[in-house]
Parts: sequence; structure tokens; C-alpha cells
Amino acid sequence: MFQTINEISIHPELYNQKKVLIQGWITNIRGNLKIIFVELNDGSSFKNLQCVLKKEFIDFDKIENLALGVAVEISGIFSNTPERQQFGEVLVETLEIKGNNYNTNFPIQNQEISLEVLRQMPHFRHRSRLFRAIMKLRSALFFEIHKFFRRQGFINFSAPILTSNDGEGAGEVFIVDDENKDFFNKKTTLGVTGQLHAEAYALGFKKVYTFAPTFRAERSNTRRHAAEFWMIEPEVAFFTLEQIIELAVKLLQKVIKSVIIRNKDEFIFLEKAGDKNLRKRLLQFCDSQVTQISYEKAIELLLEHQEKFEEKDLFFGCDLKTEHERFLTEEIFHMPVVIINYPKNLKAFYMHQNEDGQTVAAFDLLVPGIGELIGGSQREVRYEKLLARMNELNMNIEEFQWYLDLRKYGNPGSSGFGLGFERLLMYITGIENIRDVIPFPRTNKNILM
Amino acid sequence: MFQTINEISIHPELYNQKKVLIQGWITNIRGNLKIIFVELNDGSSFKNLQCVLKKEFIDFDKIENLALGVAVEISGIFSNTPERQQFGEVLVETLEIKGNNYNTNFPIQNQEISLEVLRQMPHFRHRSRLFRAIMKLRSALFFEIHKFFRRQGFINFSAPILTSNDGEGAGEVFIVDDENKDFFNKKTTLGVTGQLHAEAYALGFKKVYTFAPTFRAERSNTRRHAAEFWMIEPEVAFFTLEQIIELAVKLLQKVIKSVIIRNKDEFIFLEKAGDKNLRKRLLQFCDSQVTQISYEKAIELLLEHQEKFEEKDLFFGCDLKTEHERFLTEEIFHMPVVIINYPKNLKAFYMHQNEDGQTVAAFDLLVPGIGELIGGSQREVRYEKLLARMNELNMNIEEFQWYLDLRKYGNPGSSGFGLGFERLLMYITGIENIRDVIPFPRTNKNILM
Repeated sequence: MFQTINEISIHPELYNQKKVLIQGWITNIRGNLKIIFVELNDGSSFKNLQCVLKKEFIDFDKIENLALGVAVEISGIFSNTPERQQFGEVLVETLEIKGNNYNTNFPIQNQEISLEVLRQMPHFRHRSRLFRAIMKLRSALFFEIHKFFRRQGFINFSAPILTSNDGEGAGEVFIVDDENKDFFNKKTTLGVTGQLHAEAYALGFKKVYTFAPTFRAERSNTRRHAAEFWMIEPEVAFFTLEQIIELAVKLLQKVIKSVIIRNKDEFIFLEKAGDKNLRKRLLQFCDSQVTQISYEKAIELLLEHQEKFEEKDLFFGCDLKTEHERFLTEEIFHMPVVIINYPKNLKAFYMHQNEDGQTVAAFDLLVPGIGELIGGSQREVRYEKLLARMNELNMNIEEFQWYLDLRKYGNPGSSGFGLGFERLLMYITGIENIRDVIPFPRTNKNILM
Repeated sequence: MFQTINEISIHPELYNQKKVLIQGWITNIRGNLKIIFVELNDGSSFKNLQCVLKKEFIDFDKIENLALGVAVEISGIFSNTPERQQFGEVLVETLEIKGNNYNTNFPIQNQEISLEVLRQMPHFRHRSRLFRAIMKLRSALFFEIHKFFRRQGFINFSAPILTSNDGEGAGEVFIVDDENKDFFNKKTTLGVTGQLHAEAYALGFKKVYTFAPTFRAERSNTRRHAAEFWMIEPEVAFFTLEQIIELAVKLLQKVIKSVIIRNKDEFIFLEKAGDKNLRKRLLQFCDSQVTQISYEKAIELLLEHQEKFEEKDLFFGCDLKTEHERFLTEEIFHMPVVIINYPKNLKAFYMHQNEDGQTVAAFDLLVPGIGELIGGSQREVRYEKLLARMNELNMNIEEFQWYLDLRKYGNPGSSGFGLGFERLLMYITGIENIRDVIPFPRTNKNILM
């Protein structure tokens, strides 16, 4: 019964001179006492549909409330206009305003509003052009990621979020309980990773992945950290470090390419609004081999530019800061780069211990503008080695006995990684603050709506 | 390089007399001193691949550790056997055991193990045939649901899980904070619904849905309740109650049909293990019109069978218990049934207030074996009516002002529903306990691993 703007814009010739019915919101309005031009968006497409209101067909007195943001239902005759920039327009026959409209002060007007101001109204900002682009890309990317894993034969696996293990040993966890403070039989936190549980499911299903909300009680208010974000974590049995790195690169290249192809309008808008070379830069990565260097080599390279960093104390064993990561990918390689074989003290307990006794089979994938986008590793499959490391770190063995037990029965080893969904979206959109790629962002001291 | 059992089983004729390489786990083993038959599963298919080990090719002394659950890599020549029940078998040339194997006591043996015992080992039970079927269906259903919404033109939307609103007013919420007890600037809970936020996004995007973990501090230990579960919540602007019910039924019918077609092996197994009429019953629903009755009519019908219920006090305004819901769908209609127009006191504050002043435009979809599978409503779009109801309920208006404000600008009304993913999976698999359709279930006093 109703057509969508997406349907019409894909095959405008099929709708030429046909009657169409559209429900949507007004995103632009201009005109005079005889003719009014209205642009309509119905959420199905980033494109707007131009609608022409003429005094001879429409009673202008009845639509004096027509304004930005107003919801309408229109019918009229569509004309395909291949000679013009827009794909067509509708000569409106009927127009009905839907719902109450205190429209004169709709917060989203067409002049530029700062991102900071928009952040104060997460319930409205997606009705601006910029956030419509971002959130449509978010959804498109979400679908592409699931599609990638499905086509690669992965099982989607729901790791528990309520957990009594702290997988990363990161410490920055949220504690959960009900009002009575005794809902569970032990201290329960919001999981910071689904990996440990995914490892269990990789045994038997071979290829599994989780894609779910993740929580960190991160108090540093940076533009890259949120208390709640989505994470993608594949885990593949039989895979080595090299194979999982290959999967990570393939995933990124495939989903980025697909989103660029399918969401052309959004990218054209983003390029006009910001980074002119957005797609060029992304596609260059999609068509490249990703360079891989050892952590040791990375330190060497960084030492050659020591004077440029705030943190100058660089040595084998030091934790790379974002400034170092970004320098490697932005200034040295001008491209995403993979760092492997980190000192074991910098990484979590479960990683495969290399022969050198010093490093683990870990990798980080760094990208320009962000720094670390992906972190992963081959897991330590040798029971005794894993146990020794856990004891070294004074971990509660009893609590993790089930995880150790995974090594006892038919465990060929596995590898996996964690990819921050929002960081990937930042990389793809060029948006610099994580608060602007999450519909209702949550950060320290900040939980709006 | 490696083939999957899924690839081979779909087109066994293409692999006939070809060399194959497979990585997987042993799910069955029998034989004698001259010949050993091994069944292999690699997670790609519910089907196993039969592998034949002959003494003349394989050194039996080197594989004496071969047992159930062991991970192996095999190569050999595949023979298509269209005349037999199995699709083919591999004459093994090389076999390598991967990883350590304390195999003699692998907890998942082929004799029947009770569901209660298996619940104590969520890290291993998916390597049994029953849980392999359930978890593969879980993943398949997950993909089908996303596909349905994508094809219907929905935007996937991430509602925040950390929230300071309690959407349902249900009270059974988890409270979240970090060790220092001051991470946020107000009391923060795990959201029990993404609906309020989804309503904001339906304005502008028209069709949005969330599919995410949901949390309830539910203390009743029933077989249908978990503290952590996944919920699907579409919200569609411009939609009325009737339209959203239509969408709900269409969603169920479509995803159930797709899963039945794509996962035949799992259903054959489930039917052998339990309900012989599983698919017949499901397909009957898929091809039927769903009956719709008012709450008032439901009470009338139930009163005719009053003596059969534990809770006999049935009157207009009483809350239907699971026994009543199940009686309606199992004994009266023998089919899923939709109940509409509940008394407003039984439902949440945000539902459209009907003309009668007593009921709201709500619906519940009840299915046999479960009771309520879906609950939804048309939302109250009239600012004053909504505000009046919130005041009646003594709600904190300030906290919900943003939600009220959604009514001010271009709100044509919207409708939506919540579908419990695990309840749907229970309905589809015939599995009776929610703990058996979640990989690592979390319930009151119970957080294992």
C-alpha cells in the first residue's frame, strides 16, 4: 500500500507518472504563497524525496503547521527526473499531518548544530542529516558483520554477560546485584569479554563468534572509551595466530567494502561534511596487504622518533600508548598495521607462550585515527603452561578450573580476537568521538536518558 | 585447503573418490583389531562423517588414545554412498590427534545423560548430540530473525542497557556500579527493555528493532525465567495495534518456516528424541490465520472452565496466570492465539488508552507449551493522556521528560512488541526448560562458570 523512498529511488523509472503514497518526516521546506517545496525522509533511504505542493491542489491554510520534523502522509503523482540531480519528485494531491506538532521549536533545525549540543539530545539527534548517516551506517555495518560470519560458516554464540570471572583481569568491572544484595551466590560482574566462554564453544563447533554489548567501568573520559559498547569476538578451534590475523584482515576488508558499495549516499554526505578522502583511504586499505611487525621491531621503529612523543620511555616491555600506536600506523606505515608477539606481562593470562619464554602469540591491529582496533591471540592450550602462568599471576584457580578443564578433552588449540564495533564505525565514518556513533552513549558520570 | 562436512554432505557427488582433509571431533567410535569406524563432526553440519580406519594404512598402536571427544585431523579418499543412509565415508590415509587428551573420562559419553547433570557442565554439554542440535538451531534462528528485519527494511538499533529509567515499572531490576559506588551520577540499572529508546529512533527511521541481552532480577525459579536472556523488540512509527500484530505473526511464521527448511537434520533428531509432531505442529501454525480475541472474551472463555484452574478467581481486571494462558492456547484454540485490549492496570504506563477508558491497546501472543511469547502495544502518542497516566502511577516525570518530549515533534504514533528469543527457541525445539536453550544460563542463586 505505502511505497518507501528507497524502493522509488532504486527504480524511479518504474514509478514514473504513477500514484505513490508515502509516510515520512519533513527534512526541508521552502516556498511562497503559491508553491511549497518539501523534502521528505522516511528512514528507508538516506535520500530525501522532493514533494511539490501547489495552491490549486492543497489548501495552504490547513497546512500552516507544516515545518521541519513534522510527520506526514502524502499521496501524489511521481515524476522521474533523470535529467536532474534528484531522482524525481511528487506532485502532491493529498497531505495529512500526523500526530501533535509543537513544531515551531523542533530542536533539529537545518543550520549547523555542534556535536556537543547534539550529544545533549540523543533522542532527537538522529533526525539530523549527519546522525541519520552515522546510524544508517551503524546498522548497515552490523548486518554486514553478521553476514560475513554466517557465510564463513560461523555459529553465533551468546556468551553470558553476567559472570563471576574477569576474563581480562582488567579490573575495571561493573558489579551487579538486585536491591537485596543477594541475588546470586557470588560476586557477579558484567563480563568484559565473551572469549573464555566462546573458547568452550569453539570446541565442537570450531568457528563461533559473539557480537554483544560489553561493559567497562572505564573512568578515563577519552574520545575512544565508553562504559557500554558492542564487541565482536570470533573464536576458531584449530587456528593459529597467523590464521586468526588473516581472518581479522579479511573481515575488515570485506565489511568495509560492502558498506561502501551499499551506502554510497551516506559516504558522499560524510565526505562533503568532513574527510574528502574517506572512501579512498578505506578502499586503499581494502586492497592492500597488511604489514605485520613484531612488538620488538615496533619499539625499535618508535625509538627512532623518540623525541616526538609525550611518553619517551620506550623499551622492550613497555606498554604502547595510543600516541605510539597512532604514530606507527599514521606516520610510519600510513596504513593499518599488525603488531605481534608482545611481552607476556603486557597481555592477558590465556595467551600462547612463545618459545622465547618472554613473549606471547598476541596481535594488535592498529588503524589510523584510532590506534588499536583489534586485539587477539592464539590461546595457550597446554594445561601445565596455562596453570603455571595463572599461578604466577596469583589467580583464583578454583574459579577458573572449568576453563583449565577445556584443555583436557579434545582441544586442538584455538585463536580469536576482539573487535570494538564502535571503533570500527569511527574508522569507517571518520567520526572522532565514540559518543557520536552510539545512539545513547554511556560514559563515566554520564547516563543521559 | 580443509573441507567442511557441510560442504561434502550438500554435494557428496562432487567429492566422490576425491581426497579430503577434515578437522573435527570424534563423536562415535567402534571396531576391532583390523578395522575401526569413527564418526567425525566438525561443527559445520549436524551430520557426522563416517571415517574408516584400516590396519593396513594406519598404525593402530599410534592411535590408541583415539576416543570420544578427541580432536583429529584426517585425510583420505571420500566415497559417495547414495545407496546407504549416510551420504558417504572416508577411507582414512592419515590421522593426527590434536592437543592433549585426557580422553578416558570425557564427560560427554554416548549413553543418555540427564538434562540436570548436563546443566552442571555448560562448557561441555554442547558436544552432546542434543545440545549440538539446540545450539545450532539457536544460531540459525538468530540469523533468520536478523534477516527478516533487514529484508523488511528495518534499521538495527542498539538501545542502551545501562539506564536510569525502568521502562516496564516491573521493579525486578539489577543495579550496576563499580567498586567505588559512584561511577555514574545517578542510580543505574540494567534495562529491562529497549522500547522507550527504540521509540525515539522509530521517529525518523520509521522501522527499527533491537535484539540484545535483557536482564531481570527474577527470583521465581521457573522453567521459563532466566536472569539474562535475549529479546527482540521492533518499533514501527505510523503503525497501529493491528499492524504490529500482523508483523509479529509474520515474523514468527517466516522465521519458523525458514529454520525448519534449513535445519532438517536437527529437527529429525529432536523428533526422534522427543516430540514426534514437532514440525507438523509448527508448520500448522505457519500456515494458519492466528485467532484474535479480547481480554474480556478470554475471561469469559476461561470462566467456562473455572474448576480446572488452581487460580479460580477470574474476573475482568485479573492478571492471567500461565495456567490460564496455556489453557487458552492449548485446550481452547489448540494454536497460538492473540489477546488484545487488556485492562490498563495490568499493563505498562505507555500504552494507548482506548476509548472505553478501561483498556489499553495491548496484545499478548500466547503459544502452546509456553504461554506468553510476545507482548506488545500501540503507544500512547497523546502528550496529555500519557502525562495523566504517569501522574496516576506516581512516576518520576522529570526522569521521563525526554520520553514525553518525543510526543512534541512529528510523532505519528508507533507500535512495537517484545519477543523473548529463548522462549521462541523453546517453542521451536520443544525443549521445556529455558536453562537448556541458553549456552551458560543465569538464574537466581546460580551463576556457573
